[in-house]
Amino acid sequence: MNNYTFIDGSVTAPMGFTANGVCAGVKAATNATQAVAANEPLLPKSGKRDLAIIYCERPCTAAAIFTKNAVKSDTIYVTQEHLQNGVAQAVIVNSGNANACNPDGMDKANAMCRLAAEALQLDENNIIVASTGVIGQALPIEPIAKGVDALKDILSKDGGTNAAEAIMTTDTVKKEWAVQLTLDGKTVTIGGIAKGSGMIHINMGTTLSFVTTDAAISSEMLRAALLEAADVSYNMVSVDGDMSTNDTLAIMASGMAGNTPIITQNEDYKAFVAALTAAFKNVAKKLASDGEGATKLVIAKVNGAKDNLTAKTIAKSVICSSLVKAAMFGADANCGRILCAIGYSGAEVNVKAIDVSYRSSKGEIMVCQNGCGLAFDEDKAKEILLEKEIDILITLGDGNAYAEAYGCDLTYDYVKINGDYRT
Amino acid sequence: MNNYTFIDGSVTAPMGFTANGVCAGVKAATNATQAVAANEPLLPKSGKRDLAIIYCERPCTAAAIFTKNAVKSDTIYVTQEHLQNGVAQAVIVNSGNANACNPDGMDKANAMCRLAAEALQLDENNIIVASTGVIGQALPIEPIAKGVDALKDILSKDGGTNAAEAIMTTDTVKKEWAVQLTLDGKTVTIGGIAKGSGMIHINMGTTLSFVTTDAAISSEMLRAALLEAADVSYNMVSVDGDMSTNDTLAIMASGMAGNTPIITQNEDYKAFVAALTAAFKNVAKKLASDGEGATKLVIAKVNGAKDNLTAKTIAKSVICSSLVKAAMFGADANCGRILCAIGYSGAEVNVKAIDVSYRSSKGEIMVCQNGCGLAFDEDKAKEILLEKEIDILITLGDGNAYAEAYGCDLTYDYVKINGDYRT
Repeated sequence: MNNYTFIDGSVTAPMGFTANGVCAGVKAATNATQAVAANEPLLPKSGKRDLAIIYCERPCTAAAIFTKNAVKSDTIYVTQEHLQNGVAQAVIVNSGNANACNPDGMDKANAMCRLAAEALQLDENNIIVASTGVIGQALPIEPIAKGVDALKDILSKDGGTNAAEAIMTTDTVKKEWAVQLTLDGKTVTIGGIAKGSGMIHINMGTTLSFVTTDAAISSEMLRAALLEAADVSYNMVSVDGDMSTNDTLAIMASGMAGNTPIITQNEDYKAFVAALTAAFKNVAKKLASDGEGATKLVIAKVNGAKDNLTAKTIAKSVICSSLVKAAMFGADANCGRILCAIGYSGAEVNVKAIDVSYRSSKGEIMVCQNGCGLAFDEDKAKEILLEKEIDILITLGDGNAYAEAYGCDLTYDYVKINGDYRT
Repeated sequence: MNNYTFIDGSVTAPMGFTANGVCAGVKAATNATQAVAANEPLLPKSGKRDLAIIYCERPCTAAAIFTKNAVKSDTIYVTQEHLQNGVAQAVIVNSGNANACNPDGMDKANAMCRLAAEALQLDENNIIVASTGVIGQALPIEPIAKGVDALKDILSKDGGTNAAEAIMTTDTVKKEWAVQLTLDGKTVTIGGIAKGSGMIHINMGTTLSFVTTDAAISSEMLRAALLEAADVSYNMVSVDGDMSTNDTLAIMASGMAGNTPIITQNEDYKAFVAALTAAFKNVAKKLASDGEGATKLVIAKVNGAKDNLTAKTIAKSVICSSLVKAAMFGADANCGRILCAIGYSGAEVNVKAIDVSYRSSKGEIMVCQNGCGLAFDEDKAKEILLEKEIDILITLGDGNAYAEAYGCDLTYDYVKINGDYRT
């Protein structure tokens, strides 16, 4: 059925794309009273990479979806405008400063596009811009100017991984991937990078994520594919229930694979979406397991729901519960908190038909049957829950719909990281 | 305007009421494989009080409101049935076991009522029953039988405070209060006890709370008063966003104050509600500041909203944000997280008109003006946020509506307490 294969690679895997990331000093300048250390290094000897460009040698069809938060970074408004014609050729993105809730946010977002357009000799309207980091502090533009100047000369096929690094904030691991499939007899590659790892909640393409492909596909179909794939992946991840102001999930397609352009939701479209979905689900798991302070990945899998919406609603409610998350941290096979979270989800459900089990590589144990707590082997349960990847299996007796949601445990380190994020 | 006065006292302050609490050994028996240590002491030398009775010497008008969680303790169904006629004469309540998600939950809830009815020589239908504690483990009835037997002989005016202690779970302080007002020339007293302190979320009379009064007032007016007072107090508290399966807020009125019975929403009703509301708001603050692991009380105060619903929605969203809560723990005057939480609240709001300040006994500092972050004195902000009671002041430019919501910080101890609640 699935004809895709994951390969090593990043956002530069598809034909036509190059990228790189440098340490421009955005974060240092954001925190300094007077912006910009004049001799901030552009390689990460003394700091983290914080500025990336992804570039395509030809104009791409493009689409993006964004946070639903009413408070948005101005970068989002700028990118929305630039994508109205469905064309883009480059992404410029910084970490260390979200450029949100700033009086001059729009100017700065436009300045980033202008800098990238000048350096890459592109139309400013063909630039996608994004930022991530601290909210409400002025974005220092000088380090970005210097960073762009350095980046324009080092964009390369190898640079994708640096770009992945440059968008990290509190992430502890880079998120990059590539997948290949055959469409119309041609090898098509899709690649991507993404960042976590806090302020992540179920609703739209959580976090920043940039995707490239050499498929020939219209911007309308790209947008439809993003929505479809995100719906069961990014839209099912929660770290802390806080929805970001900056979420952007953007895709550019160079068309260089030479397949017959996808302009309807045909079989090729479906194959493309299947590959994209598989990749996004992997990213969703990585985002969750690298959630701020997380020690384990927790997946709520809901079976037997009367419809998809019910299955999703319940899976999300369970994965978002602070009490469930804390119990997972403590490897406590509490069933009451699962039932409680199902109960307040708002979904209509026959409580007396709910079964709950925990599963990991160490085995599976049922803790609730027909809506009632079971006596179970606590030692066995502990052994199962001490693993790094836990499935919470919820079976409803109401139908055949299925959904899964991705989350993590709530730990001391989450509190520590977020107790003083800005310093 | 307000003619009420807080006095020392508890649920036994109003005329007609006695109470007490003992250590029946419910929790120990819940955790033991074989229930009930035969010689479990009934005074708390070796454990916590976990069983209480509140009794009135005459039948009372009564009302209650309950959790909206679809997964409910069977105690709630039993109490709902018993209150259909608007009459009650006693409350029996245990901590240590929630009697929720158990196959025999209904039998046990009825058994508790029967035990209390027999001991107090009342009609079983006049008993309000409630439980709190671990979900999904069988409620041991023998310790409750022994506890009731002990309680029936020690119900007293002084026993209210023991009852308050007996309903505590992870609470670190007892919640009890009494307030007096003059109605119709008569002194009317209202008293109450409540418990926190986790699985507390905005929706209905969070947690267990029992209220008594000697006012003469119909059960319909009691119910209306509960809903009205809870709406701006219990319904505006969040500790962790998890809504309990057992929430019960019940009130009994003995009528012994001799005021003209309140049977419509007249001036006396309004005075009664004002006193009840003031008391509930105090409890709400106590619940929040004694939230699991909490080190400080945080109150989100929203001014200038276009209507009450908008003000409430925003206040709740801010107080529920894990990132805001963690920032309060770290005394970090982050404005981005406040704006972010306003943005995803779902409320319609003019982002460019939002001001945000932090206030405590050490002063006040503005961190956001017109939707944009401000530069501010970090040392001063730290000093303000290191206090034990913090106001987050949010001013919208959209109207005159006001709301406040009560919460706490998110701390290492929350994670610790909930990482292994059952042991």
